[in-house]
Order: sequence, then structure tokens, then C-alpha cells
Amino acid sequence: MTDASDPTAKPKSHGRLTISASLQPRDLMERPRVRGAWCAKIITLFPDAFPGTLGLSLTGKALDMGLWSLETLDLRPFGDGRHKNVDDNPSGGGAGMVLRADIVAKALDQAAIGTPPDRKRWPVVFLSPRGTPFTQAKAQEWAEADGLTLLCGRFEGVDQRVIDAYQIEEVSLGDFVLTGGEIAAQALIDATVRLIHRVLGNHVSTEEESFSDGLLEFPQYTRPTDWQGHTIPEVLLSGHHGKIAAWRKVEAERLTKERRPDLWRAYCAKHGRDPNEDREL
Amino acid sequence: MTDASDPTAKPKSHGRLTISASLQPRDLMERPRVRGAWCAKIITLFPDAFPGTLGLSLTGKALDMGLWSLETLDLRPFGDGRHKNVDDNPSGGGAGMVLRADIVAKALDQAAIGTPPDRKRWPVVFLSPRGTPFTQAKAQEWAEADGLTLLCGRFEGVDQRVIDAYQIEEVSLGDFVLTGGEIAAQALIDATVRLIHRVLGNHVSTEEESFSDGLLEFPQYTRPTDWQGHTIPEVLLSGHHGKIAAWRKVEAERLTKERRPDLWRAYCAKHGRDPNEDREL
Repeated sequence: MTDASDPTAKPKSHGRLTISASLQPRDLMERPRVRGAWCAKIITLFPDAFPGTLGLSLTGKALDMGLWSLETLDLRPFGDGRHKNVDDNPSGGGAGMVLRADIVAKALDQAAIGTPPDRKRWPVVFLSPRGTPFTQAKAQEWAEADGLTLLCGRFEGVDQRVIDAYQIEEVSLGDFVLTGGEIAAQALIDATVRLIHRVLGNHVSTEEESFSDGLLEFPQYTRPTDWQGHTIPEVLLSGHHGKIAAWRKVEAERLTKERRPDLWRAYCAKHGRDPNEDREL
Repeated sequence: MTDASDPTAKPKSHGRLTISASLQPRDLMERPRVRGAWCAKIITLFPDAFPGTLGLSLTGKALDMGLWSLETLDLRPFGDGRHKNVDDNPSGGGAGMVLRADIVAKALDQAAIGTPPDRKRWPVVFLSPRGTPFTQAKAQEWAEADGLTLLCGRFEGVDQRVIDAYQIEEVSLGDFVLTGGEIAAQALIDATVRLIHRVLGNHVSTEEESFSDGLLEFPQYTRPTDWQGHTIPEVLLSGHHGKIAAWRKVEAERLTKERRPDLWRAYCAKHGRDPNEDREL
């Protein structure tokens, strides 16, 4: 995370506002923009999908304040011929359509204007079930970049040659198939933006939550203390911080072991523990 | 999937339209509704997030045609007191807020009206990073249900007692943290709805795509055949169906082995192969 108090961090002046020019003077562009603020550029056939849910709640407030920005590039105008074709049949046959390398390249060239060519500072991402699974670590990595460009697929996919030639990172939201990349793009942006300095404010701690230590989160309870005869575990009402922390750790480990053997094995390896041990869990 | 030609399938008459009453006469409710069509009920503090991207493209067309329906239940009016509070501090301390069991239960009771109590026919789902990872198999299971109710969390989570008492299924989109459950809900609904009979039409084959056989999809290419000196693998232009299928299988296996050792091991176990073999990959 960029920390203003860290003198080695690259300068980001969150105060000064600039008005930036854009090919697409759409509603979501008419927000103040903080110079150097993290920016998501989205290449899509459905620009109306944005900002969508990202325009609400904390991410929406941060967007309104210019703490991050969002640009959509409609892929359609880059299309070919009278019908602005962007896709064609798969070489070798098969169902579905494939986005054309030449068309996608034109959109990527447009999106690249004003962005650093270093893919670490500005990742270029294609959302695909074939990609590397998206994780919290990836969100953290992206939040530390200057911004990113997301290509949203529809149909069967994108011509492999443009993925290779433009060093596009293929990222998957999970082992399921979506109609298109737009919802996945919103998920990745939401997960990333909330890690950007000042976006969350005091609303949520990013430290205590799931995955930060490789365990699922412990169960939560709140008032009423007695709900239809269901009570809250006594230790949580004890006021004894040490015991509460210990209980939560045991619960987090129990849940992780039960639900996510993969995370549990990784956690045990990291902490030098036997994944099959039968402690007080 | 419900198949109209299967006499053992529960009757679904996709033809007759009915107008259903709702507490919330919102825009997205004013669509025709096919009797017995799959229905998503969403309990959320941000009903404006819906239908969002689900209202566009194929899912949006199917929604307009009444092939599936969407109902949002605003959680706020179920809140307590003058400020309609829905959450409170976590018992035992800590950051964030927890949705109250009593408030959530009232919304769930409202959502349950007109739905079967059998959780297989109508799953009740809470979107949480602590849940079981969502997969294509889960989407298929849900598409075969009559519908489902999704509770979107914000803040730290939901009181564990209501999760237990209402047999709520905790499902996670992946190993990352989102600001809220709304985007995750859209992803789960999109993945599910596209598997419902008639939603996809002829646009996309659901058979050939990723995960249906446990492998990642092979690389795709399309015209132009020569793009800036980058050519398409010759076999794909050969017209020889057998060779094309063989090439694609090898590529799908290579990609899966490279990118997803977890899927690769599962695939090998299923097909009685050695995951460390060094065939012609």
C-alpha cells in the first residue's frame, strides 16, 4: 500500500485535482481526478456495465473523491467494416467466436497512451477461466501499481497471438464460466481498490480479515446476546482479551481445516505444523 | 438442466406469463415472468446494484424474456429503531460491524414466502470469503434448483447463529476480500443463469468450454491468418478434424499442467494417468 509517510514511496499527491481529456466524455469520467491516482482502464463491449456496483458504497465514494479513477474503452468502434466486427470464427472450427488480434491490439494501443510500458507498474489483464486464479496477494500487488488495463472477453476467448504479443496476464476469478468478463472485472477492481490508501477509511480493518494470515475468519456474533434461545459463546462476553484471541484462533484453524484443506496445508507448512495433528481443535 | 422433453422433469411451462405481486415494485420487477422460471432473491443493503451487468447481454435478454427473474429485498427497512440499524459491534471486540441475527432473520423470512423449504430446491446462500469455493459444479446444481436466495454481506460478516439456524450455505467467490457481496452475487447468478435452458441459445456452447472435462481450454485463434507476422498454428488451418482435436487436447493438457497443478492432478486421477508423465506434451 502506498503510505504517504514513507519517504521511499513514489510521490502521489492526493491533493491536487486535474481534469483529464478522454475520448469518451461519459458520466463516469466527469469526476474530479486526483493526479497520480490509481486508474483502471477497461476495454469492453459493454461499457454501460461500469461503474456498476463499483459506483456504490465505499468504492463509489472513493471514486467520487478521485482517489481512484475508471475509464472504459468501448471495443466496438475499433471493429472492422460497416458492422464493426470485433470477432470471427475459431480457426480449426468449434462453437463460439474469438476476439480478433488486430482489433484488440488497436484498443490496447489506445489504452496504453499515458501509461508506463512496464507491466509491473501497469499490468494488462485478460479475464479468462484459463488464467491464474485471482488472490488477495494479486490484489495487493495491483494496488501497488499505478493502475491496470483490463480486457473483458465475451464469446469463446481472444486470439492467443495478441495475448502473447502484448504480454497480457491471464487471470481467472475462479473455476466457473461467466457470460463475460465485466462482472469479473468489477470483482478484481473492488478487491484491489479497497487496498488503496484512504479508500476504506475506518470502515473496515484490512488487517484482521480473511487470508491475511492464511486462515479463514473465525465466526462472528453481535447483539442481541440471546436470540430466540441461541446464545453467544460465553468467552466472547468475558472481556478477557487473551482468551477471546485464543478462542478465535482455534475457531479459525478449525474452520480452515474443515472447509479448506488446501489453505490448511499451506498454513501448516508455513508454521511448521503437522496438518494431521489433533490439537485442541 | 430442466429439459422440456424429459417427462420426469418437474413441470415448467415456459409459455404462460403471470404477473407476480411484490413488496417492491421496482423497475426490475416490471418484466414478464414465466411461471416456474428460475428466480434469484437477493437480500442487500444496495438494491441499486441490481440487475447491474446481469441486465445486459444474454443474461439481460433472458431476464427481459422472463426466462429467469430477479427480486431484491432491501435489508435496511428490516432494521431496528429510528436509524434502522442492521448491524452492531462484534462480540468480543474487533474492527468492523456484524449483521444482526434478528434483522437478517426477518429478511430471510420475508424472502422465504412462496419458496420451497427444501434447501436443495431453493438454496439460501451467504457470500463470504469463509465459504466453500464456488465452482462450475455448484452453478450446475443451482441451475437445477427452482431458484435461490442470496444474502449479501457488508462489514465483517453475519452473526453465526442465523447462519446455523437457517441452514445457510456459505459460498466464496475466491481467496480475496470484496467490499461487499453484491458483485460476488452477480458473478454467481451469471454463472448459474447461463446454464438454464434457453438462456444461452446458440450463442455459446456450454459443452466445449473450460472445466466441463476438468481441463483448461486450449488456445484460440481467428482471422487474420497472418497478423503482423504472427501466424496461426498450421494444424488449425489443415481442415483435418482429427488432427485439430488431438492438437487441442495436447494444448489443453499442457496449459492445465503448467497453470493449474491442482486441476491437473484431479484430471489424472480421474483418467488413471500419472500426473508426472512426460508424454508428447
